[in-house]
Amino acid sequence: MAGWSRDFPATGLDARTLLEEPLVFFRLSSGQLVAFEDRCCHRLAPLSHGQLEGDSLRCLYHGLRFAPDGRCIEIPGKTTVPKALQVRTFPVIEKYSAAWIWMGEPALADESLIPDFVGVDDPTWAMLPGRMDYEANHHLIHDNLLDLSHVAYVHRKSFGEGNRERNEAWAKASVQITELPRGMRFSRWIEGAPSPPHSAAQGPQVDVFTRYDYLVPGVLLLSTGYYPTGTAPRYRAGETLGTPIFDSFTCQAVTPLTAKSSCYFFAFGPRAQHANMKEAFRDLGIKAFTEDRIMIEAQQKVINADPARKMTLIDLDKGPVMYWRLVDRMLREESASMTA
Amino acid sequence: MAGWSRDFPATGLDARTLLEEPLVFFRLSSGQLVAFEDRCCHRLAPLSHGQLEGDSLRCLYHGLRFAPDGRCIEIPGKTTVPKALQVRTFPVIEKYSAAWIWMGEPALADESLIPDFVGVDDPTWAMLPGRMDYEANHHLIHDNLLDLSHVAYVHRKSFGEGNRERNEAWAKASVQITELPRGMRFSRWIEGAPSPPHSAAQGPQVDVFTRYDYLVPGVLLLSTGYYPTGTAPRYRAGETLGTPIFDSFTCQAVTPLTAKSSCYFFAFGPRAQHANMKEAFRDLGIKAFTEDRIMIEAQQKVINADPARKMTLIDLDKGPVMYWRLVDRMLREESASMTA
Amino acid sequence: MAGWSRDFPATGLDARTLLEEPLVFFRLSSGQLVAFEDRCCHRLAPLSHGQLEGDSLRCLYHGLRFAPDGRCIEIPGKTTVPKALQVRTFPVIEKYSAAWIWMGEPALADESLIPDFVGVDDPTWAMLPGRMDYEANHHLIHDNLLDLSHVAYVHRKSFGEGNRERNEAWAKASVQITELPRGMRFSRWIEGAPSPPHSAAQGPQVDVFTRYDYLVPGVLLLSTGYYPTGTAPRYRAGETLGTPIFDSFTCQAVTPLTAKSSCYFFAFGPRAQHANMKEAFRDLGIKAFTEDRIMIEAQQKVINADPARKMTLIDLDKGPVMYWRLVDRMLREESASMTA
Repeated sequence: MAGWSRDFPATGLDARTLLEEPLVFFRLSSGQLVAFEDRCCHRLAPLSHGQLEGDSLRCLYHGLRFAPDGRCIEIPGKTTVPKALQVRTFPVIEKYSAAWIWMGEPALADESLIPDFVGVDDPTWAMLPGRMDYEANHHLIHDNLLDLSHVAYVHRKSFGEGNRERNEAWAKASVQITELPRGMRFSRWIEGAPSPPHSAAQGPQVDVFTRYDYLVPGVLLLSTGYYPTGTAPRYRAGETLGTPIFDSFTCQAVTPLTAKSSCYFFAFGPRAQHANMKEAFRDLGIKAFTEDRIMIEAQQKVINADPARKMTLIDLDKGPVMYWRLVDRMLREESASMTA
Repeated sequence: MAGWSRDFPATGLDARTLLEEPLVFFRLSSGQLVAFEDRCCHRLAPLSHGQLEGDSLRCLYHGLRFAPDGRCIEIPGKTTVPKALQVRTFPVIEKYSAAWIWMGEPALADESLIPDFVGVDDPTWAMLPGRMDYEANHHLIHDNLLDLSHVAYVHRKSFGEGNRERNEAWAKASVQITELPRGMRFSRWIEGAPSPPHSAAQGPQVDVFTRYDYLVPGVLLLSTGYYPTGTAPRYRAGETLGTPIFDSFTCQAVTPLTAKSSCYFFAFGPRAQHANMKEAFRDLGIKAFTEDRIMIEAQQKVINADPARKMTLIDLDKGPVMYWRLVDRMLREESASMTA
Repeated sequence: MAGWSRDFPATGLDARTLLEEPLVFFRLSSGQLVAFEDRCCHRLAPLSHGQLEGDSLRCLYHGLRFAPDGRCIEIPGKTTVPKALQVRTFPVIEKYSAAWIWMGEPALADESLIPDFVGVDDPTWAMLPGRMDYEANHHLIHDNLLDLSHVAYVHRKSFGEGNRERNEAWAKASVQITELPRGMRFSRWIEGAPSPPHSAAQGPQVDVFTRYDYLVPGVLLLSTGYYPTGTAPRYRAGETLGTPIFDSFTCQAVTPLTAKSSCYFFAFGPRAQHANMKEAFRDLGIKAFTEDRIMIEAQQKVINADPARKMTLIDLDKGPVMYWRLVDRMLREESASMTA
């Protein structure tokens, strides 16, 4: 994911580095989003210092002008342009409120590989989009999201509202993990948790069901449903889940910027009929995700100080271990299909 | 070029790094400029933290004192000084309003190799000296000056005054390039360009003749003359150039500080009889050269992000290509003469 | 030396990097000081972001809890903990007003190797503790302290009070150097030096005796005594030193933080009966030690610019040369005893 669609301006140039590659994005007059490498093929000046002329982009160092497909179509003062003179472009598609970019071989771009995201324009949920940049390698952020046992500690004050009982219930809940074709599914029941305000009408306690899919290359889709106590055991006995008292949803995506920095996109909110709570959920999300960022950036600094130091994986790490095994398998398969 | 003469103070120590070498400059009581490496030979403390005592320089760490030729002439508390104890000095000569330093083997210093510069004290022109530091390798600045096709784009608002017609005329003008014994000469006629204010009495249009020499190791001497329309074709037919309606001059020099930073010295002004325009030219120069700096520092950042990426040289690059070929030849000859 | 005892708080976590190792210090309910590596063995999050629970330390990323000996004693939600799960701890002892840490193999920690320091709680002297961090390798600080000939130059305005006669007397004084079992002893007589205010009742001049021990791994204990003129020759003739007119003392220690930074601990003061002068001595110390820091950090920058450049050792460097020879010998012996 390159960004939320709404964050790419209708006019002008937008420079972003993704996967170590400096890029410049701009929209054609049709609205179509285009991504160029942010360096002129001539003398490597940044094209983001250039200017749009209709659907073409002119470098403002020596004036070379490029068509939307990256070919150079003008060298000032010259009547011919070498055919090979072009800048690299990257396939971009907008879908699910976001822009998705393919950083690999353009011929291998395959729209069907974009994960089934649920974006901020989905009518079911009332969500506001956010973005947070990390001074950390993206692996640490994936690992954070693939093991939510940290919620009881990192988020003890935000999501946990400083409620020891709630945090302990989360810490003790067991997680079911299953593999999806291109990701993982995690499910947790917290039984008899203290009711939050929005579900308090039901009584002092609720059963909370949290389920999320984590999809390659780094998309999280998580729903949390609040149910009357007793729902959890009935569900485990085979009963279908009814309508919850209340539920919320969050979609997230992690994108590497460089080996040392990453970008974290997120949205978090209630069902559309509770749109009045949209800002409150957004603010809670920012508070909690900042807690993650502080911990992960601190973790990254510890790692930088001695990169040879190994982590010790324990039971808690089942999710991350399964995920990275899946990613490794997919990389091997992709590599085999390319050499075949 | 180490700097403008007037920028080296009459008294006290002046630390500057040139070609990766930390230096400390100071003037003897005779006014002669001297350059020491800025490190004591004893424990490598910076001599620029020391103090002048007459014509000698004392290190203020352990008190060693050095004569203008770099020899240690005192170790406090000791009656003898080892003969070999000395700091390196560098030959410096002041000429053309500037200080010229030889960073190589002192015995090979040859005053005749100083390019025929025209400095700010030259009586023909009214110029004020300037200096700008770059976070960029000096090669990028030389390349910028060796291909002035960038003027129509980088300087479209300053030198080009935002006048599209003037910028296009510049972009389309052809350049004559000839080789000099230790440099290159570039000439351009812009025919029928819009008259700038100082030449407007002549009519709405002028022919503009710009010629500059670019001399090893990085000195530019450029004059721009405004002539009545029709002068260009007569000149090409063999007629001698008469007195221009107006003309201006700029002298510039590029000196490496480190592999990642450079120093750009410049002066720009009209003939001496128009000295009242001196400040206006200086201000225009600073505006335009800042445009260069912004573009070149941005270009350097793009290069740093992927140093393996190659430039693609096109027709515009004839000047830089010829110049670097000349420099390579001179380096080979110098190297051959040293081993001979 | 890890720090002054009083600088380790009674409660809470105190993060410090020593010898490239990130550490977190805390006190048990008994007051005992404990040092952990500042990284959780699980996912390398910093334990200094954790929280104390009684005498145990909980990581606030995933909630693992550690006993004072470093063993993990709780994984939230799990009933068993792998035996091998533990963080590294470092032996620490408090003695002479300071905390002493052993960064090597814990089994080899030997309290008897702590140098015979004289700390700020010693009843003989009235001293206030200080700390200064250097952007410099610790070798340069040791070298500074092992050759006090720099006092006449670096400290010409502070200790030398801008008095040329005093500074010259110091520069010319000869030094006796003798080897101690684990360090060096330096002695200097300055005869007929101008009397400072506290000793002026004696007359316009005094004989000043300065003696210091420099002990592995970097501890300095220095006393300065002011005596009636004529004391120096009588001492050299074998007479025992009587009570000085006035004397002062300073204890100091140098600890590497990283290869590029160091920590300098110091205290400086008069005899306990002159405790009213405590702050004045502290302020003079800070002024003088800041002069050292400025010179040494500048020296480090010169070295960084060309790390291949060699120092030239001269007569003044007898102290440093003897000391480093001693350290090398001790390292060889330690290494031999470990392989034996």
